[in-house]
Amino acid sequence: MSQSRLFLSDNAAPVHPALWEAMQRADRADNPYDGDALSQELDARFAALFGRECAALWVATGTAANCLALATMCAPHGGVVCHREAHIEVDEGGAPGFFLHGAKLMLAEGEGAKLDPDDIAAVIDPIRDDVHQVQPHAIAITQASEYGRSYTPDELAALAAFAKPRRLGLHMDGARFANAAAFLGGSAQEAARAASGPVDSLAFGFIKNGGMGAEAVILFDPEAAAQVRYRRKRAGHLQCKGRYLAAQILAMLDNDLWLANAANANAAAREIAAACGDRLMHPVEANELFVRLTDAERDSLRAAGFSFYDWGAGAARFVTAWNTRDDDAHALAKAIAAL
Amino acid sequence: MSQSRLFLSDNAAPVHPALWEAMQRADRADNPYDGDALSQELDARFAALFGRECAALWVATGTAANCLALATMCAPHGGVVCHREAHIEVDEGGAPGFFLHGAKLMLAEGEGAKLDPDDIAAVIDPIRDDVHQVQPHAIAITQASEYGRSYTPDELAALAAFAKPRRLGLHMDGARFANAAAFLGGSAQEAARAASGPVDSLAFGFIKNGGMGAEAVILFDPEAAAQVRYRRKRAGHLQCKGRYLAAQILAMLDNDLWLANAANANAAAREIAAACGDRLMHPVEANELFVRLTDAERDSLRAAGFSFYDWGAGAARFVTAWNTRDDDAHALAKAIAAL
Amino acid sequence: MSQSRLFLSDNAAPVHPALWEAMQRADRADNPYDGDALSQELDARFAALFGRECAALWVATGTAANCLALATMCAPHGGVVCHREAHIEVDEGGAPGFFLHGAKLMLAEGEGAKLDPDDIAAVIDPIRDDVHQVQPHAIAITQASEYGRSYTPDELAALAAFAKPRRLGLHMDGARFANAAAFLGGSAQEAARAASGPVDSLAFGFIKNGGMGAEAVILFDPEAAAQVRYRRKRAGHLQCKGRYLAAQILAMLDNDLWLANAANANAAAREIAAACGDRLMHPVEANELFVRLTDAERDSLRAAGFSFYDWGAGAARFVTAWNTRDDDAHALAKAIAAL
Amino acid sequence: MSQSRLFLSDNAAPVHPALWEAMQRADRADNPYDGDALSQELDARFAALFGRECAALWVATGTAANCLALATMCAPHGGVVCHREAHIEVDEGGAPGFFLHGAKLMLAEGEGAKLDPDDIAAVIDPIRDDVHQVQPHAIAITQASEYGRSYTPDELAALAAFAKPRRLGLHMDGARFANAAAFLGGSAQEAARAASGPVDSLAFGFIKNGGMGAEAVILFDPEAAAQVRYRRKRAGHLQCKGRYLAAQILAMLDNDLWLANAANANAAAREIAAACGDRLMHPVEANELFVRLTDAERDSLRAAGFSFYDWGAGAARFVTAWNTRDDDAHALAKAIAAL
Repeated sequence: MSQSRLFLSDNAAPVHPALWEAMQRADRADNPYDGDALSQELDARFAALFGRECAALWVATGTAANCLALATMCAPHGGVVCHREAHIEVDEGGAPGFFLHGAKLMLAEGEGAKLDPDDIAAVIDPIRDDVHQVQPHAIAITQASEYGRSYTPDELAALAAFAKPRRLGLHMDGARFANAAAFLGGSAQEAARAASGPVDSLAFGFIKNGGMGAEAVILFDPEAAAQVRYRRKRAGHLQCKGRYLAAQILAMLDNDLWLANAANANAAAREIAAACGDRLMHPVEANELFVRLTDAERDSLRAAGFSFYDWGAGAARFVTAWNTRDDDAHALAKAIAAL
Repeated sequence: MSQSRLFLSDNAAPVHPALWEAMQRADRADNPYDGDALSQELDARFAALFGRECAALWVATGTAANCLALATMCAPHGGVVCHREAHIEVDEGGAPGFFLHGAKLMLAEGEGAKLDPDDIAAVIDPIRDDVHQVQPHAIAITQASEYGRSYTPDELAALAAFAKPRRLGLHMDGARFANAAAFLGGSAQEAARAASGPVDSLAFGFIKNGGMGAEAVILFDPEAAAQVRYRRKRAGHLQCKGRYLAAQILAMLDNDLWLANAANANAAAREIAAACGDRLMHPVEANELFVRLTDAERDSLRAAGFSFYDWGAGAARFVTAWNTRDDDAHALAKAIAAL
Repeated sequence: MSQSRLFLSDNAAPVHPALWEAMQRADRADNPYDGDALSQELDARFAALFGRECAALWVATGTAANCLALATMCAPHGGVVCHREAHIEVDEGGAPGFFLHGAKLMLAEGEGAKLDPDDIAAVIDPIRDDVHQVQPHAIAITQASEYGRSYTPDELAALAAFAKPRRLGLHMDGARFANAAAFLGGSAQEAARAASGPVDSLAFGFIKNGGMGAEAVILFDPEAAAQVRYRRKRAGHLQCKGRYLAAQILAMLDNDLWLANAANANAAAREIAAACGDRLMHPVEANELFVRLTDAERDSLRAAGFSFYDWGAGAARFVTAWNTRDDDAHALAKAIAAL
Repeated sequence: MSQSRLFLSDNAAPVHPALWEAMQRADRADNPYDGDALSQELDARFAALFGRECAALWVATGTAANCLALATMCAPHGGVVCHREAHIEVDEGGAPGFFLHGAKLMLAEGEGAKLDPDDIAAVIDPIRDDVHQVQPHAIAITQASEYGRSYTPDELAALAAFAKPRRLGLHMDGARFANAAAFLGGSAQEAARAASGPVDSLAFGFIKNGGMGAEAVILFDPEAAAQVRYRRKRAGHLQCKGRYLAAQILAMLDNDLWLANAANANAAAREIAAACGDRLMHPVEANELFVRLTDAERDSLRAAGFSFYDWGAGAARFVTAWNTRDDDAHALAKAIAAL
């Protein structure tokens, strides 16, 4: 990564070499759309990873992945409960309104941009059960959260236990799912299952983790999968050379590259976190750090060559990536410690 | 291209080597989304090509390109006139209904899947000017058409002269725009301008012409461009590593690769056409051939290793591509001549 | 009806006196929306009429009634097969596109604007079962049809037998349902059941039959009914003084007024039809007549004080209504016979 | 009004006798839809009232009126700023999401459910001017507000001065517009102009003020009016016997009945307010009272025959109507004073 973008975000990092190789291997012609051999492999590969039947469809963006999944759970006249700072609410340009035909996002509060059943109940319990008020149809959570917090298996189980009797779908925005999984630990299968828990659908992100332009929508409900296939086409997201997307995803699954990449990013974040002490605004459970820094401190770090986003007044966000080098992490840790 | 797919379609061909190189050069980090240096270059490059101001935005599919452009011209309560066999009507899974919020496609007849003013008038003149009937807001044509026919500059001028006083937008689906341009001839600038004429927007296709996953939406109306930027994000089509898409498109523009690739495909089609004689259902003005063949003849060609789609009973469709080899074209021409 | 509108349409006729009385009786305050005693009575009253469980909701227009029902059967990415001249296609200003979020109307041909299974199969059988083509989700028929033709119980049974195994919903636009029922004959229960057959939903029209502004959406599927209640509110169709709409509908059901009104209109149409002989373009099975008339003949009828719509060149449409007087029908019959 | 509903709401009150008469006069046949003489009169009548050109269209509900107007100002990818407790956010079943094709409501805080420029700026100033965040396109205010507060002409002028340079449309939900106008005082013209100020559109409510089922959408922008005519039909809101709706509205305008009815309701509210003293949660500037009452006090009022809604714990909402009788208002005032 060029110096100039160090710690700014993981969303513009280069593509991992293994993915370049896989894409080039896919260059020989095959069936178009998702009829190629690689795309056809996805369902089984993810089912093996998660230990339960699922359908896995590639799409080019996390926004599309989230919205296609949510549209299977929430009718146009329904609502999706999410955190007030959820990406789908704040940073997707109103995409849920488009894909869900005007369904409503219902905003909940929760520490670290995570939600627990009480947070959700606080939003939906006051809703009168009548046609004048939009009724909740689904819940969307982000793993890891927008503040780099990870849901534990117990927390996910509690959410599912809350959702099921209320007939609410449970979707996970996993733009940084790999980082959460790496944080929770274990083998690839263990980590994937721990981090996803019993959700109904998952937008499994690869782009921030070394991919080029492929995320996987994972649907654990077969009826939902059939619907998403039609909706993906309808949204202009069925690429005719889909084999290049499938190739990226499969290369990520091969040798658990997805987990290794995330572990590298997390390790860099952990090292920097150790230098931050009380400056940390949130526990670091993935690859993002939110750090209290004065204007002068931010200036001094930037003068030293580090780049990052301001996080309002008096704070900054640092993001590590699959390719963050050890010495860059050391350097930042040292610089912060020295402030 | 593997033998097994020869002449089936151009939509699954490999990626041109120059594009692979360009993508890999783009691998160094840059701003995300379309803030990178390559994406920023697009407007000017296309303005130079077309000789008029325009905005150029990458998207991953022709379906998205068409629908994003059409949404700027046609309100949800309006209609878009297109040919009964237009791709947007027949093969985009209802995408116009999604992107245009329920606007109506109004189906016209026209020879070779082309439309002229009379074809369009036949559809819209009977529409009563009252709120009970959907009013036309735009026209969509395909260059080259779904039957491989190309619009001439005069034909495009006539369509624009028809559209303007009626305040109808004029959009061009250019999935095979390059092939039409190559057919019309001249330098890259001359060919591009001849093939686009005075349209308001163009979905300039690169994927069928050697690209991986990038088409360009060209908007000659600056207000429309601003709107498309928001709508692209909202449709989940703003990729965070957009530089890889921009790289593909720029590599296509460099050295007029787009035109050379199309010329190669067209030449192959022309050679095969010469062998078809009366079997041709449509003049060959791009890279598609629609050929009358009996069942036995189709079987015999397939037995000889050629692949292609049946086109109903008694006919077949052959498509050449940027990478169709001369000897494959010779072989097919010879085989058809020998039938 | 003022002379000036005789036979123009039934859609602007006065309100039947019994409905005025019923509305005024409803003037005393009650619960708002559909919580009033009258609205609460609707389900049971229609269930008794049709002999099967149903939900019945008032709405102000047939357009809303049709679209609310269709939206329960057809997902945004699906299609509704209807006749090319169906009201929902030709005269509802694109409302199905709005209420169904861009779903597609699939246009079938059929004599007299009626559809039979073969007509529908001709449209849907060629649809490839893949995501590139919109798949049919429902069928919409009109009883009586746009040309005043009525479906018989056997024809309806055949349509349902076609629809069920294909999992297609079957909706009936009953703007002139009463006229079809009156044509089919029998008691109110017999006629209602014969005319509706085994449809999944019915837009039961009252406005053209002496009402002011209330139609009934009848849903024979309880899950669909729940959804329509929410969608009706969301479409701005839940009136707060709904009791005035319920009052109109109940007054129509009382003493089988709906059937008597329709029978009156049908009788007038029958009498005029008898005078038309070969001029009739369609058998008269409800209250509409499509009659071949030269320009001179149309002029002469208009000079005699009759009003009606031209039906293209060389034809005219006459519509009788609940309040068409015997002597007006006699006069028109006599005038046509004398041409 | 039956005792049992006294002070519950104004939305289920009977229809004013003058409207019954006007509707019955409209019973003679006329052109359908809005082609009748009464509907044709609306534009001019409202232009005279407001002193500026406008189009006036009837619809059956305030929800439809608000949403049709807002859809002319806010693109599907935009947002509408409104109060967190605005009716369009809280009580319209998600109708704005439907009519505006997924546009977003942006929730502002403001005392008494009113908004001032600072309240709005607090919501929109933090929005980054990029495609990742939904941009505001319009502002919606409620006159009188959901807490019975009225905007003054100066406050409205300030909102318009804020909106114009930012190119934000300004819509007014006037479900109780008449009550605000009556509060602001003056002749009908003076009151109407004071209460509407320089808004771009107004949903002028009549139903809560003695109507049956007709509100007026007032559009001060002629282009917006043309669009609303199409959208009204498309939403199933173009009734074929529209003359009965026009008759209601015209009867309200005749002799300034709308203002007299509202003045009666306001007077009753004022009298009750005088008895409430410190119990009032909001100044009473229309016909709604929000009153602090313990559980025991609420019980005691109900035992005395008064009906009203609880307003959370420790409070109640009382609404007076056009037909609230003096002695009922006296009685309630006396009962509250005696608590």
